Amino acid sequence: MPDYAPRMISINASPDERFTLRALELASKGIAMASPNPRVGAVVVNADGEVIGEGFHMYDGLKHAEVLALEQAGNAARGATLYLNLEPCSHEGRTGPCADAVIAAGIKRVVCSMPDPNPLVAGRGFAKLREAGVELLVGVFADYARKLNEGFSKRIRTGLPLVTLKAAMTLDGKIAPPPAEVTDIGFSQPGWITSEIARAHVQELRHAADSIMIGVGTVVSDNPLLTDRTGLPRRRPLLRVVLDSQLRLPLDSRLVKTAHHDVLVFCSFAEEKKRAALEERGIQVEQVPLAKNEPGGVAVAGGRPDLNAVVERLGARELNSLIVEGGAAVNWAALAAGIVDKVFLYYAPKILGGGNAVPFALGPGYARMDEAAYLRNLELHRFGEDFAVEGYLRDPYSD
Amino acid sequence: MPDYAPRMISINASPDERFTLRALELASKGIAMASPNPRVGAVVVNADGEVIGEGFHMYDGLKHAEVLALEQAGNAARGATLYLNLEPCSHEGRTGPCADAVIAAGIKRVVCSMPDPNPLVAGRGFAKLREAGVELLVGVFADYARKLNEGFSKRIRTGLPLVTLKAAMTLDGKIAPPPAEVTDIGFSQPGWITSEIARAHVQELRHAADSIMIGVGTVVSDNPLLTDRTGLPRRRPLLRVVLDSQLRLPLDSRLVKTAHHDVLVFCSFAEEKKRAALEERGIQVEQVPLAKNEPGGVAVAGGRPDLNAVVERLGARELNSLIVEGGAAVNWAALAAGIVDKVFLYYAPKILGGGNAVPFALGPGYARMDEAAYLRNLELHRFGEDFAVEGYLRDPYSD
Repeated sequence: MPDYAPRMISINASPDERFTLRALELASKGIAMASPNPRVGAVVVNADGEVIGEGFHMYDGLKHAEVLALEQAGNAARGATLYLNLEPCSHEGRTGPCADAVIAAGIKRVVCSMPDPNPLVAGRGFAKLREAGVELLVGVFADYARKLNEGFSKRIRTGLPLVTLKAAMTLDGKIAPPPAEVTDIGFSQPGWITSEIARAHVQELRHAADSIMIGVGTVVSDNPLLTDRTGLPRRRPLLRVVLDSQLRLPLDSRLVKTAHHDVLVFCSFAEEKKRAALEERGIQVEQVPLAKNEPGGVAVAGGRPDLNAVVERLGARELNSLIVEGGAAVNWAALAAGIVDKVFLYYAPKILGGGNAVPFALGPGYARMDEAAYLRNLELHRFGEDFAVEGYLRDPYSD
Repeated sequence: MPDYAPRMISINASPDERFTLRALELASKGIAMASPNPRVGAVVVNADGEVIGEGFHMYDGLKHAEVLALEQAGNAARGATLYLNLEPCSHEGRTGPCADAVIAAGIKRVVCSMPDPNPLVAGRGFAKLREAGVELLVGVFADYARKLNEGFSKRIRTGLPLVTLKAAMTLDGKIAPPPAEVTDIGFSQPGWITSEIARAHVQELRHAADSIMIGVGTVVSDNPLLTDRTGLPRRRPLLRVVLDSQLRLPLDSRLVKTAHHDVLVFCSFAEEKKRAALEERGIQVEQVPLAKNEPGGVAVAGGRPDLNAVVERLGARELNSLIVEGGAAVNWAALAAGIVDKVFLYYAPKILGGGNAVPFALGPGYARMDEAAYLRNLELHRFGEDFAVEGYLRDPYSD
């Protein structure tokens, strides 16, 4: 389990903390398996402190985590405590309301990390439990629980995926050496910036994500695969999204060659022949308007598909999350369009210097320090000799 | 005490660890007071585990830490244990050899963090103690002890000060917004990048340093004071060094106006009248040759005093350490000249973006990722919402 649960708990942790942690562990089994639903784990513990039922939700399995755990516990659930990372649902969805199931099973007490992030139903499950006389404790490991379902929460609140801008750079903010030099050693192998440990973590990020996006320029220059190479099972393939206003995507790119209905191209001008050629190869093509303006009134040179329209389309596909792995131009476009919720910036312990190396974000940039994009809730992660900064431009639960 | 001793020690710490930590605490009282000598603390503990003597070295006080602690302990030192962060000296300096004093006092056991960093005398103090039958344990909290005296160690080994390149920047490596915009709001107040907590730590760095250096360009644009504003006592003033090949330093700059024999200008062309005007104001002027070449054979445009000559002059003044607080040009010049031992890079949780914002280091830069300056022993520090990266381009104890 990546960063979704405390790596160490105190030896003085209470039973409530220990069993909630177990529920979070179970919930994290829903990574890549529960989406577009939330990741939920459940643990039933009897009066002797024995675990008598466990469950976690997988979308294809239909049943919710608490139902699975209650089924396992059977009659022993009567008088037991149920640990959950998310409020039980109170509404008829693909399954009956879980809150009713909890009450019917005779659960005496529910310990839960957080309420439902959907403001339309938040608190209703808890209310049902309270009315039925079930004891309730809410908020144990709430931070971890919120992080585990931040993608689901963003989409359920706004209809849009949680957008993470990911980049790897030197300590002085360079994502590549001067282009001329890259050409010298071949455009297709510009050399990794970060170490294997950091790059393995990028694969974890991809595994936990529903979609990933680059500009067609990066396809042309780097010819990336853009796949989830963790080898772990996932219900839906990682949707590989390409921003390609003029449909330049090369038919001999690795992306096209490996497409299995998991490549989606957003264009603004679709030449019918090229579109047909791509669609023949199982690639989906959608047309969105060109971006008109960036905040500040600067027109985008060259033209780029409107990123707000792009994320709306992805949200409509019930994709909870999107990783933007852009180059310098796409990074700036994403920031300027205001679609970025959080960043995951990997740093190698290197300084490149020089005015010609490629910076993290090109374009006009922010003109003043007090206009700069500001990250909140900064977390630092170490990956061997590298480190990463995780931070939020927006709170997926309220902004 | 800044980062020189563990902030928390386990409740299971051994007495040896606890008393060594105390010796390190005492040693850190030598910050700004012991230079050019090392920072040393000493604790004498009797058989009952009671502290019976403490001492730390201040240059003006002459006496070494162990002598002060032994004097305090008096006859009770017989059979006691002496805790030290640095090997006792074995040679006649301004005082007699401490190793002899330790033996004469009847100390039974010595616990010490590290050997003398001077390869010419390292181990001799320990050898004397061993020969006299004193029990010896070396290496307790060695990492902290090494860090506390890394400046002294660099100078005593090489004759040069430890050079720390310090900068504050955004997450994308920008030290300032686009210059045109800075002009808009006045060059003298470009706005802080980092928060008050981070800037307070910069003052701690300055307090612990013997000298600080900027380019004359920064004097002209920012008009900084460059002083140690911690308010803590220091034996020698922080020497403020300006790189100023053509002696352009404005007489009405705050640096000149506040000079009290603590400003040193390195020039390459000294116009006699300007030189005299500066010297009248208590400013020291030294002439060094222009830098000829950077590694890679690129001639420095405009001309800059040879930085290797500059640090040699500072070493000759028995300055243990130098902070380089350059702008983008000086940062690159320092890296290219190979004078940088370590970096302290502060990051605000901001992204500025754009091709025109001022990067950490201008100039040609390194052409390939595998040629980039590589930092070892990376440490991350949190300062409120900001963080800093501390890392070494060179080991002050061996490279």
